[in-house]
Amino acid sequence: MDLYEALYTTRAMRRVRPDPVPTEVIRSMLDAAIRAPSGGNSQNWRFVVVTDPDMRRRLGELYREAFAILRETVYKDLWERARQVGDEASLRVQRSSQWLAEHAGDVPLWLLAFSRNDPSGASIYPAVWSAMLAARGHGVGTCLTTILAHFKSADVFELLGVPDDRGWVLNAAVSAGYPLGRWGIAARKPVHRVTYQDRWGEPVPWEVNEPLYRPSG
Amino acid sequence: MDLYEALYTTRAMRRVRPDPVPTEVIRSMLDAAIRAPSGGNSQNWRFVVVTDPDMRRRLGELYREAFAILRETVYKDLWERARQVGDEASLRVQRSSQWLAEHAGDVPLWLLAFSRNDPSGASIYPAVWSAMLAARGHGVGTCLTTILAHFKSADVFELLGVPDDRGWVLNAAVSAGYPLGRWGIAARKPVHRVTYQDRWGEPVPWEVNEPLYRPSG
Repeated sequence: MDLYEALYTTRAMRRVRPDPVPTEVIRSMLDAAIRAPSGGNSQNWRFVVVTDPDMRRRLGELYREAFAILRETVYKDLWERARQVGDEASLRVQRSSQWLAEHAGDVPLWLLAFSRNDPSGASIYPAVWSAMLAARGHGVGTCLTTILAHFKSADVFELLGVPDDRGWVLNAAVSAGYPLGRWGIAARKPVHRVTYQDRWGEPVPWEVNEPLYRPSG
Repeated sequence: MDLYEALYTTRAMRRVRPDPVPTEVIRSMLDAAIRAPSGGNSQNWRFVVVTDPDMRRRLGELYREAFAILRETVYKDLWERARQVGDEASLRVQRSSQWLAEHAGDVPLWLLAFSRNDPSGASIYPAVWSAMLAARGHGVGTCLTTILAHFKSADVFELLGVPDDRGWVLNAAVSAGYPLGRWGIAARKPVHRVTYQDRWGEPVPWEVNEPLYRPSG
């Protein structure tokens, strides 16, 4: 797969089929992940591949609980406002997030990423994103979620038997499976509206009004 | 460029030539960056492209100061031990990090990434890493650095005129330029030694003893 096709079309793919993700794809995702740079090349990361049905079911329950907290706190006003004004883009995210919460135990693969001595996240998230891009190359959709880390970290540690005295932190839970939806380039604010030249607020001397990459297919 | 070639060979490329990075490459890096997913599709990020020679010189001075702090604190014991035991891999990182600190003002492009409401870094670092992968596709080397963010954030805010009352946080300063060194697959601990199956400590039922991707060139 072309690099730019992957970079432009790896959108959050929450709705996936229950069919298993082949071991070869899992290996490829993880081997790509560890090629990412980490601060001082410390590679202070661990990954847990969750495919066992019972473990997925229990992880899925925690995910649902975490999602309920999110919906009643951080996203409450935001999502309520989106409903009121009919913000369709936001409502789509709500619906697919709700779908993932309801089907979290049926998602065939969860990839959990842990790190140590990486308070900024600068080392772990490139690795996580590489795993997601590698999955895209095999036609597997992923979604980077952090709600388990935010709201259910202690429960996840208990479920997986993660030692809590060695500095490990749960950074992300990536759902993965063959997509029900279609790949595409997600809508974004044009890049020249979020980029400055040399000083904050100084416009860049260029614009990008259409995505620079378009899949040929 | 092939996706996997980019994922496997985008190593930290600190030593770069002073030749400018073309605007088309800068646009491609940034347009790729904003295609990355962000929590709730919030896109709560801003990027500053620093190419002006005077701004680079001043940013380079701050980088050198930040590097001196790093070397005398976080990395002091680690690097001293590496020298004592002759850990060549670590010494190589030391030398190229030192090179970057000494030449920070001559690096033709610095890309600064800021975010808001993203305490985990889960939204900004995929975007930053996408910019670096996009650069790789154009033959431009990059290095993700966080020392300006850790040690010199207030000075960078002052230099660039970033408002300090609107919640923006500096997450990364990415150096970029045409490489003096060669692309290659960085050495890593084998992935099966940092990955578990279903439970912490449970080995995965596979190994990867050679990188799964090898550039054909």
